[in-house]
Amino acid sequence: MTVAVLCGGVGAARFLRALAGIHPAADTVGIVNTGDDTVLHGLRISPDIDTITYTLAGAIDPDRGWGLRDETWRAMEALGRYVAVRPATSAAAPTWFNLGDHDLATHFYRTARLDEGATLTEVTAEIATAWGLQQRLVPMTDDRVATMVTLRDEGIEVSFQEYFVRRRHSVPVSAVRFDGIAAAQPTPAVLQVLRRATAIVVAPSNPIVSIGPIRALAGIDEVLAARREQVVAISPIVGGVALKGPADRMLVELGMEASVVGVARLYAPIAATLVIDPVDAALAPAVEAAGMRVVITDSVMSTPEIGNELARRTLAAAGIA
Amino acid sequence: MTVAVLCGGVGAARFLRALAGIHPAADTVGIVNTGDDTVLHGLRISPDIDTITYTLAGAIDPDRGWGLRDETWRAMEALGRYVAVRPATSAAAPTWFNLGDHDLATHFYRTARLDEGATLTEVTAEIATAWGLQQRLVPMTDDRVATMVTLRDEGIEVSFQEYFVRRRHSVPVSAVRFDGIAAAQPTPAVLQVLRRATAIVVAPSNPIVSIGPIRALAGIDEVLAARREQVVAISPIVGGVALKGPADRMLVELGMEASVVGVARLYAPIAATLVIDPVDAALAPAVEAAGMRVVITDSVMSTPEIGNELARRTLAAAGIA
Repeated sequence: MTVAVLCGGVGAARFLRALAGIHPAADTVGIVNTGDDTVLHGLRISPDIDTITYTLAGAIDPDRGWGLRDETWRAMEALGRYVAVRPATSAAAPTWFNLGDHDLATHFYRTARLDEGATLTEVTAEIATAWGLQQRLVPMTDDRVATMVTLRDEGIEVSFQEYFVRRRHSVPVSAVRFDGIAAAQPTPAVLQVLRRATAIVVAPSNPIVSIGPIRALAGIDEVLAARREQVVAISPIVGGVALKGPADRMLVELGMEASVVGVARLYAPIAATLVIDPVDAALAPAVEAAGMRVVITDSVMSTPEIGNELARRTLAAAGIA
Repeated sequence: MTVAVLCGGVGAARFLRALAGIHPAADTVGIVNTGDDTVLHGLRISPDIDTITYTLAGAIDPDRGWGLRDETWRAMEALGRYVAVRPATSAAAPTWFNLGDHDLATHFYRTARLDEGATLTEVTAEIATAWGLQQRLVPMTDDRVATMVTLRDEGIEVSFQEYFVRRRHSVPVSAVRFDGIAAAQPTPAVLQVLRRATAIVVAPSNPIVSIGPIRALAGIDEVLAARREQVVAISPIVGGVALKGPADRMLVELGMEASVVGVARLYAPIAATLVIDPVDAALAPAVEAAGMRVVITDSVMSTPEIGNELARRTLAAAGIA
């Protein structure tokens, strides 16, 4: 009984970790957003894939939520020397995106393998194996898709990482666009998993910039809509705020509602059920009015037990007892 | 009075450092071999340029002779995990070429700047500035040239670094080739420096794989031959052995003589004078018979004083008192 999980970064990683407590990891497939992917220093960075890999390996830094524990930052420190000499027109030597020394090996390997002609799907599987993962992780596409964010006040469009990391997602946005999406294809593996999975979970990730790119790929929403009864989404908005990141503000800035109801309006076409936290119980009728069934259970994964129960209730909603 | 120095790695770096003691660094230009350059982990590595830069900055590791002092190797350590999972056909995650964590920043900057469209000449100057160098360093070309070495016993051709580092230059070679040399051009800066310099020094570097690529570029040997009286070479072979690296064995394996006489036969067309060590004084007549004037002075730069005197005698031979 395969469970497919549509994934962004931290929230999805934590859900997958919780899921491993109640469902065989070998029967779990994470379909991971790559719209956040970027190239820095010539290296191919896949932040969401790495966050999930490191989390499931038990190697994630528990405080930061990203990167490796016991990490050092020697290469980053040394980069400062070059910031001082680069031409005014150059963006080389970015020091606003931290890459730890151990973490670099992952980007080295990914970059070298892609240069050799391997697909991101192949490399992602190799890296997962290197970390001992039982779950299967597949990128949403082997093509390049870049999430671009228009900053409302500056009136410029920047890459997702420039918004998310460099500006600490603290500035309002006026538009989100997935560059390259029209030419990109979901991989055959992604389509096959979505068609065959017993249950499909939309992880508690940002619906716009994490789940959005996956859904924007040709054919994905159609597959999900066709399997809507088996699709269960977990709201990343709890009590009107995002558990992590800018999803709440982003929803409002883009004209939606930062609530489980706003989430339900986005997911109703593709998912039959929305899992919401008890704090939002009063909004259950509005979620149902938006076209989704409601499961109410603790969704802030502050302990393993809460995470396991969330995973159990989520699978149950898709028909897996 | 500009002094131009044709450079490989360690020997050239030490000569330039010695030269700085007796000649204004601002009037010194190093023209550096890039045939050793390679791409590892997607990063553009220029070993000879970096060795010279770090040496002149006083930042070179004094024991290894390459890389930075007080270096750490965290990224390299972490790469081992991926060696275990890469496909048999993959060369990703090479752990035989050590890149220190601080050193990585240099490759990050170079790679990013080249990706932005900067020339290697521009990037090399920026990196030299970042390290406070007064000397000017210019790569021999902005085009890609790759020194390829045929291994006699294995009968295969490998990149220079695979020979030099991976096999610790301990296997016999049967041929050396400069891939890309026919399409490569020396930069305008290189030609201008060679035409205008008051003196031109061929550093005590490997005549085949360090000086050879520079000379193989279109027009270089012609410029040097035209300025032959101002060109002084320092023999990298002392007492029949290379001060560093495989130059002695390589000369023999390729049918030449591992002696100052063998060096003289290579350099006679482009340099009027060869600087040799007193240990080779008896060979002075043979060097002269090969067509070069001889300067005899201590050429093993074991102390700053010996280095300074070597530099002084070298410039004097070119007419700079």
